[in-house]
Amino acid sequence: MKKLINSPETVLADSLAGVAAAHPDLRVDHANRIIFRATPKAAGKVALLSGGGTGHEPLHGGFVGEGMLDAACAGAIFTSPTPDQMLEATKVVDRGAGVLHIVKNYTGDVMNFEIGAELAAAETGIKVAVVVVNDDVAVEDSSFTAGRRGVGTTVLLEKIAGAAAEEGRDLAAVAAVAQKVNESGRSMGVALTSCTVPSAGKPTFVLPDDEMEIGVGIHGEPGRRRVPLAGAAEVARQLVEPILSDLDFTGAPTIVMLNGLGGTPLIELYVMYAEVRKILDAAGITVARSLVGNYITALDMAGCSVTILKADDDLLRLWDAPVNTSGLRWGI
Amino acid sequence: MKKLINSPETVLADSLAGVAAAHPDLRVDHANRIIFRATPKAAGKVALLSGGGTGHEPLHGGFVGEGMLDAACAGAIFTSPTPDQMLEATKVVDRGAGVLHIVKNYTGDVMNFEIGAELAAAETGIKVAVVVVNDDVAVEDSSFTAGRRGVGTTVLLEKIAGAAAEEGRDLAAVAAVAQKVNESGRSMGVALTSCTVPSAGKPTFVLPDDEMEIGVGIHGEPGRRRVPLAGAAEVARQLVEPILSDLDFTGAPTIVMLNGLGGTPLIELYVMYAEVRKILDAAGITVARSLVGNYITALDMAGCSVTILKADDDLLRLWDAPVNTSGLRWGI
Repeated sequence: MKKLINSPETVLADSLAGVAAAHPDLRVDHANRIIFRATPKAAGKVALLSGGGTGHEPLHGGFVGEGMLDAACAGAIFTSPTPDQMLEATKVVDRGAGVLHIVKNYTGDVMNFEIGAELAAAETGIKVAVVVVNDDVAVEDSSFTAGRRGVGTTVLLEKIAGAAAEEGRDLAAVAAVAQKVNESGRSMGVALTSCTVPSAGKPTFVLPDDEMEIGVGIHGEPGRRRVPLAGAAEVARQLVEPILSDLDFTGAPTIVMLNGLGGTPLIELYVMYAEVRKILDAAGITVARSLVGNYITALDMAGCSVTILKADDDLLRLWDAPVNTSGLRWGI
Repeated sequence: MKKLINSPETVLADSLAGVAAAHPDLRVDHANRIIFRATPKAAGKVALLSGGGTGHEPLHGGFVGEGMLDAACAGAIFTSPTPDQMLEATKVVDRGAGVLHIVKNYTGDVMNFEIGAELAAAETGIKVAVVVVNDDVAVEDSSFTAGRRGVGTTVLLEKIAGAAAEEGRDLAAVAAVAQKVNESGRSMGVALTSCTVPSAGKPTFVLPDDEMEIGVGIHGEPGRRRVPLAGAAEVARQLVEPILSDLDFTGAPTIVMLNGLGGTPLIELYVMYAEVRKILDAAGITVARSLVGNYITALDMAGCSVTILKADDDLLRLWDAPVNTSGLRWGI
């Protein structure tokens, strides 16, 4: 295992120390492993909280800031944060208008966020709404999931719901926007290599030099099938076709994200994006906005994922609203 | 070789197609392999042109846009663009106030930019100034370089000189700012793995599982030494000490970049950044601004580099000025 770390036991704490040192507009509660805004949003506005296992950076801590999340709870590598973290973070971010919990659909995350919300209700009376993201079309159940996994749509949802909260919509309205994004977004990924969890010290799975895993999960969960390595055009086809089969994206503006899984350089992501666009153009799908880069990763996995969101005027306007986080900043 | 490409021969063209499709605020001259702004800056302002071999993304094409470059010429993978490209791009970006060429110190780049500038002078009369970046403290000469290599400081220089041009300084003044940044910036990198050039199909060098290359170049050029793998704190020490030995950074605000080389996930970069900061704090060096992420890469190489720039009030103000490029966006 070749990693720039001190030890598997200290990766999370050490990386949070780096986040705190690099970003004066963020604060880190090191005891509770919560990243939150140095300057809270105005009183009376809905707050957004997410979180999950570490190893998917910049998700979620890199999306804390103006226009997106108010805080993120960090679990150990690929491990859900605990209900106590969610409770504490809910208290930190609430500005009197309630808190939306954004949860990726993995069994541990769903359970722990649920208990966290119950604790918050019992202890504090803070209103909590929940959206569970389940956008991965690859498989219906998986190693850590009942139902579809939550992947790339989470990024788009945190941006769009964040904008809805900033403009003063109430908790029910922000939750409704988040739910709409989840229902309108679909993703699928491919791995060229496994990732290596530091505490395991070896690759999560073995992928021969001439094969790739179509439909891989962001923790290295098995996908739909192992297939021979192929060129970018064919890989794009194998990712986009299942997405288009799952939802009709015609007749609406779409937002398309070509996301790197951590170990793939940007030049390959642009090659893939070009191929994805050819397929969408041929299918008569209108791409209104694009995002190419590393946004939801799987440690050092080589590979990428495609997310397509069927938007409308309201979602596009929220997408275009100001955002200022370390992981996603907008034009000026 | 596991890469998301169609073929080694088409990587550059395919990735430029992706850039054009993803970024409506950019234009791509596919014949000349030039990325330029869709909307040119105001007439009478100095333009900035850079370029170099492909494989270092987001450098340089990702830094074209408001507040940074006006255009970037893309060469083949790890190969300088040609003088004709520089000539054509110089004509495209000139707004009547001259063009600053930003050149990383590699023999091919320096020679081709020089001929490009001579062609521009002979054909067009456009005033061209040149800054050659040579900030890598690792080695004095290298595979492709006489003198020190140009690496991470290039990113900071393109940002700061870009801001100076936007605010209307003349060509001599913008070139002077760029020169000052180059003289005040130092970098050093480490590789945990080699990169793989697509046309070669195999790693550029062989690095045993228990070793790393300290002082590696961004094309996989040899560094100072091969040493046993070490923890992040020790790696940080081996990168930062040669930088601090080369220039006195005390008594001034610094800008520190912790840059990923393409195959290293963000979480490791934050771990490294925390260790770099501990060393700088202990050395009494003031860090005024931080940048953590992938900015100047070496294809899929795992590793990172540290760049430290000794700034002053003017450089900090230019650093903080608006910027809107796909590779570097600023807060709103």
